[in-house]
Amino acid sequence: MLKKTEETKVMRDPIHGYIHIDLQVVWDCVNAKEFQRLRRIHQLGGNFQVYHTAEHSRFSHSLGVYEIVRRIVTEVSGLRDQLSEYEKATVMLAGLLHDVGHGPFSHAFEAISPVPHEQYTVRVILEDTEINAILKAVDPHLPEQVASIITYSHPKDILNQIVSGQLDADRMDYLLRDAYFTGTSYGNFDLERILRTMRFVDDKIVMKESGIHTVEDYIMARYHMYWQVYFHPMTRSYESILTMAFKRMRTVYHTHPEILNCAPMFLPFLEKEMPSIHDHFKMDEPAALYGFTCLSECEDPILADLSSRLLNRRLFECVDIHSDEDLQSVIQQVSDAGYDPEYYVASDEAFQRPYKPYHSAEGHNIWVLTANGEVRELSEVSDIVQAIVCGQMKEDRKAFYPKDIQIKM
Amino acid sequence: MLKKTEETKVMRDPIHGYIHIDLQVVWDCVNAKEFQRLRRIHQLGGNFQVYHTAEHSRFSHSLGVYEIVRRIVTEVSGLRDQLSEYEKATVMLAGLLHDVGHGPFSHAFEAISPVPHEQYTVRVILEDTEINAILKAVDPHLPEQVASIITYSHPKDILNQIVSGQLDADRMDYLLRDAYFTGTSYGNFDLERILRTMRFVDDKIVMKESGIHTVEDYIMARYHMYWQVYFHPMTRSYESILTMAFKRMRTVYHTHPEILNCAPMFLPFLEKEMPSIHDHFKMDEPAALYGFTCLSECEDPILADLSSRLLNRRLFECVDIHSDEDLQSVIQQVSDAGYDPEYYVASDEAFQRPYKPYHSAEGHNIWVLTANGEVRELSEVSDIVQAIVCGQMKEDRKAFYPKDIQIKM
Amino acid sequence: MLKKTEETKVMRDPIHGYIHIDLQVVWDCVNAKEFQRLRRIHQLGGNFQVYHTAEHSRFSHSLGVYEIVRRIVTEVSGLRDQLSEYEKATVMLAGLLHDVGHGPFSHAFEAISPVPHEQYTVRVILEDTEINAILKAVDPHLPEQVASIITYSHPKDILNQIVSGQLDADRMDYLLRDAYFTGTSYGNFDLERILRTMRFVDDKIVMKESGIHTVEDYIMARYHMYWQVYFHPMTRSYESILTMAFKRMRTVYHTHPEILNCAPMFLPFLEKEMPSIHDHFKMDEPAALYGFTCLSECEDPILADLSSRLLNRRLFECVDIHSDEDLQSVIQQVSDAGYDPEYYVASDEAFQRPYKPYHSAEGHNIWVLTANGEVRELSEVSDIVQAIVCGQMKEDRKAFYPKDIQIKM
Amino acid sequence: MLKKTEETKVMRDPIHGYIHIDLQVVWDCVNAKEFQRLRRIHQLGGNFQVYHTAEHSRFSHSLGVYEIVRRIVTEVSGLRDQLSEYEKATVMLAGLLHDVGHGPFSHAFEAISPVPHEQYTVRVILEDTEINAILKAVDPHLPEQVASIITYSHPKDILNQIVSGQLDADRMDYLLRDAYFTGTSYGNFDLERILRTMRFVDDKIVMKESGIHTVEDYIMARYHMYWQVYFHPMTRSYESILTMAFKRMRTVYHTHPEILNCAPMFLPFLEKEMPSIHDHFKMDEPAALYGFTCLSECEDPILADLSSRLLNRRLFECVDIHSDEDLQSVIQQVSDAGYDPEYYVASDEAFQRPYKPYHSAEGHNIWVLTANGEVRELSEVSDIVQAIVCGQMKEDRKAFYPKDIQIKM
Repeated sequence: MLKKTEETKVMRDPIHGYIHIDLQVVWDCVNAKEFQRLRRIHQLGGNFQVYHTAEHSRFSHSLGVYEIVRRIVTEVSGLRDQLSEYEKATVMLAGLLHDVGHGPFSHAFEAISPVPHEQYTVRVILEDTEINAILKAVDPHLPEQVASIITYSHPKDILNQIVSGQLDADRMDYLLRDAYFTGTSYGNFDLERILRTMRFVDDKIVMKESGIHTVEDYIMARYHMYWQVYFHPMTRSYESILTMAFKRMRTVYHTHPEILNCAPMFLPFLEKEMPSIHDHFKMDEPAALYGFTCLSECEDPILADLSSRLLNRRLFECVDIHSDEDLQSVIQQVSDAGYDPEYYVASDEAFQRPYKPYHSAEGHNIWVLTANGEVRELSEVSDIVQAIVCGQMKEDRKAFYPKDIQIKM
Repeated sequence: MLKKTEETKVMRDPIHGYIHIDLQVVWDCVNAKEFQRLRRIHQLGGNFQVYHTAEHSRFSHSLGVYEIVRRIVTEVSGLRDQLSEYEKATVMLAGLLHDVGHGPFSHAFEAISPVPHEQYTVRVILEDTEINAILKAVDPHLPEQVASIITYSHPKDILNQIVSGQLDADRMDYLLRDAYFTGTSYGNFDLERILRTMRFVDDKIVMKESGIHTVEDYIMARYHMYWQVYFHPMTRSYESILTMAFKRMRTVYHTHPEILNCAPMFLPFLEKEMPSIHDHFKMDEPAALYGFTCLSECEDPILADLSSRLLNRRLFECVDIHSDEDLQSVIQQVSDAGYDPEYYVASDEAFQRPYKPYHSAEGHNIWVLTANGEVRELSEVSDIVQAIVCGQMKEDRKAFYPKDIQIKM
Repeated sequence: MLKKTEETKVMRDPIHGYIHIDLQVVWDCVNAKEFQRLRRIHQLGGNFQVYHTAEHSRFSHSLGVYEIVRRIVTEVSGLRDQLSEYEKATVMLAGLLHDVGHGPFSHAFEAISPVPHEQYTVRVILEDTEINAILKAVDPHLPEQVASIITYSHPKDILNQIVSGQLDADRMDYLLRDAYFTGTSYGNFDLERILRTMRFVDDKIVMKESGIHTVEDYIMARYHMYWQVYFHPMTRSYESILTMAFKRMRTVYHTHPEILNCAPMFLPFLEKEMPSIHDHFKMDEPAALYGFTCLSECEDPILADLSSRLLNRRLFECVDIHSDEDLQSVIQQVSDAGYDPEYYVASDEAFQRPYKPYHSAEGHNIWVLTANGEVRELSEVSDIVQAIVCGQMKEDRKAFYPKDIQIKM
Repeated sequence: MLKKTEETKVMRDPIHGYIHIDLQVVWDCVNAKEFQRLRRIHQLGGNFQVYHTAEHSRFSHSLGVYEIVRRIVTEVSGLRDQLSEYEKATVMLAGLLHDVGHGPFSHAFEAISPVPHEQYTVRVILEDTEINAILKAVDPHLPEQVASIITYSHPKDILNQIVSGQLDADRMDYLLRDAYFTGTSYGNFDLERILRTMRFVDDKIVMKESGIHTVEDYIMARYHMYWQVYFHPMTRSYESILTMAFKRMRTVYHTHPEILNCAPMFLPFLEKEMPSIHDHFKMDEPAALYGFTCLSECEDPILADLSSRLLNRRLFECVDIHSDEDLQSVIQQVSDAGYDPEYYVASDEAFQRPYKPYHSAEGHNIWVLTANGEVRELSEVSDIVQAIVCGQMKEDRKAFYPKDIQIKM
């Protein structure tokens, strides 16, 4: 039923050395058009505005997640003997396909799309697609099985945890990958050692105590990547312009729809409550970017300006905001300068705690297997993590506005 | 005249650590819209079909070339004192801007465009663009000066050599960068040591004999990158489909032009003898890819099929060709299978010699400064290079055709 | 007075790329026999018992410290213009020579030597040595100047801080170097960025706030290296055997001195209150190791056994100790097994807090220059460091004993 | 018979990530005192005189060779099913132990020792040692089996080839390891890909044609490492002083043996025709270096001077020699300067061809499995290697002499 490929397929990858594929169904999914489409979606929405080499796609990240899942289910002792071949294939496929529903510019696009990307991911797996056909040919239940892991609802909880927990394949791949492609060293941690000290105990992924330093390192890598890369002010500036452009598009659609004729790719997301899976397929980043190219010459001056800012990197400036009054003051000054603050002031709050145990949700904690055989939550065992858990949560609230205005606070 | 930036601007880069910019004119060019457009052109046309992480753009490569030029003119002893500040700025700008005229998919696009990309580069610098305005504001002659280096015709020959010779900033950046982003080790060589052993003697860049092993390593890196990456059969397969798609587009334009209405971005290149610099600006990779998305649903079945092959990676298969008869045989078999060989057979010959001294063109040789002060051509001094120069030139001729046909040779 | 070398001398180094030397006095010190002796002292006493590739010497570390000092005084803005050429040379020499008095196996040797290594360092610089002659030839006061930085008593406090503070050249080199040679990734941090964001303000080294994440990374690197490498139980096991061997040697010297005739290199350290600088010169690691080879066949069974354990890596086992009673219990059990606990039980406590501000000693804090120009202590600015400072201090107390005993606790 | 360890033992290694050991006999050999002694022998005799960080030992190299052998016999398809568990263990042990007979400073020591190191390796395996006991406990024939691979005489020829051929585990480890520890990039090649494209066909190790570029890279890495590292003039200078010191020692032994009483460790090698395995065990690098420390104060001025040159790095200068007359001229000038040329002129010829097929010795060629299933010798398939094979062999003949003499040629 689960056919092997003739010989193991390998794909060179700077993070993992090689991606190894020896299940035909995985190989077929990689070659399906919905998966190939991920080559046309950047992994990091606006980050390559800051780190100019962070131009990698969700295609390579998805292969990386698959590879880590594959290694977990074949290498982690205690686990490899617990899972059937079918379960292993299911969770590998879930790792591979978990991002297949992404639209352009990740989260910002959801300002225009009525449907979040997670829903599209499930639809690409369950509706009439090449991927669905490939999965169904192996087993009629396989699409639902794969989708249930992605929605964190598979009855065998360990499968959910492998793909999305606190120490999951998704996060481990993106931290390492984004560090490599930004050229920073912040996101590095010792994946080999994490895999070597992982165990499967009490239906949970646990880390042997001897690997705890590596996990501390991983927690810190995450913390640094968030603040240095993902929450970088210029990343957020680019994304705030995107959000504003989509917001303006919606307004224009209601007032002067004919203006949008030059950018037909956006229409299904404005017109329909539920754009089709085919609409979604066609809405990749080249479509959106070409749309902005056309809109940068359209008749609505605000939409034209915002579109051209995106293409030519005329980013918004930012200022720290400590209260709602601060924000009001920025709005007033932007308005005084002749800009419509509705589209020219964006406020955005970033916050992140490196790690926080969830007392209610077991699967979202990191568990440690101590030398004497107990399983304990990470922050109870690690002084460093304990210090961080008890510490203050870092917050950063900013307002974004056109650079030519001199904001006074 | 050559204003400094307030403080040195640095941009994180995995190849060079940081890109350092301290001339305002360079910084302004980086922020010009024609340069920002390079973010939307991949560095490697079809290579990311083989090496899935080779998704970097000409934007980051151009910054890298600039950085190497900057280091050459400020670090190479003998040279830094020979060039005026104006000449240094000119050659740095030439390095930065040398690829600014590229269209989508590099060479394949020239199947449709009546003008090669080098001409566009010069036009972007000399015609009415943001870049031209920035350069002219510094000095009315600066645009011509920069362009003359790019066309290898600056009267001070050393400036031409720095940007395009046998050991030039362009090639050194792309080998290192492409190696990093493909995740292969083939393209690595010791840039630090090359820069440390470079000298300027007799109006030429020369390498101290003590650095000769590093140059041998560079020659080999080049050889391996060509055969393992640039000439990879699947890269050439993708590019041959691109070429065929553009060829078909031109036919359709003459027979059923209305079919192309869904992809208006291609029209200027079909209609005009000399597309404008604005047409060129708008023709980036997102435009072309969105065009193929639309064409993949068009009424011409050949153009629709070729477009969808590009998007969904349904590449052509290939076979080695040793004679014109071999090629004829492939054409016949493809025709027998019901395909139009005009668009479904591509033949392509790749050849490369790792290094070849040009007896007529001094600037294109690599020169070595021997321990006793003589300047000699590399192959006279290096046994390895001598062996390679006398050896056979590697050739590889292939025909490409749809995978579902079983070609017999 | 401060002669330059004819051309810059460079030495290939995996941590810094190259070590650059362009002062003749530095080059002469490198070639002095007391500095060359450091090739015969391992950087990490017992660590290569755990990490088999950590076999690097204090010679390469000392060059690395010099290189970082050189970069700080020539690159840190605010500082390079504040120091005279003489002061720059002095602090570079202090960096180079700060470890020149080390004996074999670093700290363990002080169990036998009546004099700590810091004192020898000062004596090598001030007494009748090649190094002293080289320094004096430049300026009669140079030896005292260099020594005063090493003893943290130079009147210009910034010079002391550069060599030994919380973010000093010594520590930065050894963390990076030890990480490279152990093959772990724990000790990595971004030295380039630390140097780029260092400033000199208010007579202090400060870090620009934009570099704070790199400093947090450095603090964590330090923490991990301590627990994973420097305090590794098997490192401490080896060092406890060394300490015991030296202790036994002292006893044997008092009871049966003739037994030590086979290992004459140790005698000056047992006989004299103040061994000479020549005795010290000859006592390098080969001398000590050859001594143990001879002693492993001597007539005192305890000394012979301990010596052979060192050579053949028959390390002690260890157990966690939570109270003095625990230790007493181990001593009793070792004694019951027929071993003399005086030499066969070692107890050792390791503790380390990643970073702790000293309220009394300014120079030992890490200072941050905030965006609005204030200078504040690191833990006030960094949530992560604040969390760590308030957290518990990690402690680890162990007892070491021969492996063949089954200790019950 | 071949007991497994309780769990796989892993040792962190920068070249291989981890060394994996799961056979008890391998683990026991690692812990035998004759193997631990390799920690006290540098891998690169005099190279750390040039590359100051090349301070690694034969201990870590031997573990690396073992690891590559382990991977070859467990990963190379075609091979893993051909070898019995016993044969696999035998060849892994041969890889581990192939250098166990080395004396200090590798080849130079053979100037004093009447027996080459290969003979000692065999004796350590076959005579009364801890290693012999460990092997014999597994199977009485195991020592002979292991030794026969090391002497390239095992009847199953493939086992010999794995440890010492043209593409063997020994060479692959030392090139990668020496490159890492010198900090050069010359020796790098893609071990992963070599292992992935290795096959076992016709009783031979062959490389799939798709891996040929990696093999070319390996050949070049070898070439560069020889000329940049192993044959570096200052390496050869140090080794020529060593050779001279041993030569002088032999003379002094015959004329004034009492002078050598201060360095008793050398005596067995001067007195006996066949030093015992115990003499050999005790003669490690610390013994030799401590011997030179003592001899540097001895009464023979030549031996004292040469010894102190070794310790304090007062290396010989060198000059290129093109004929015997050149050499005679150097000898005359050194003699005129008052030095005894017998001990103060060393001549040395280095030559290396990157790869040369042996028509008579199959096992020493590199074989390629072409796409159509033929097995052909590498230089027939690779243009680059062909060019090198037909090219001239690089030679370098030098004379070494004290630096204070101005030699005129």
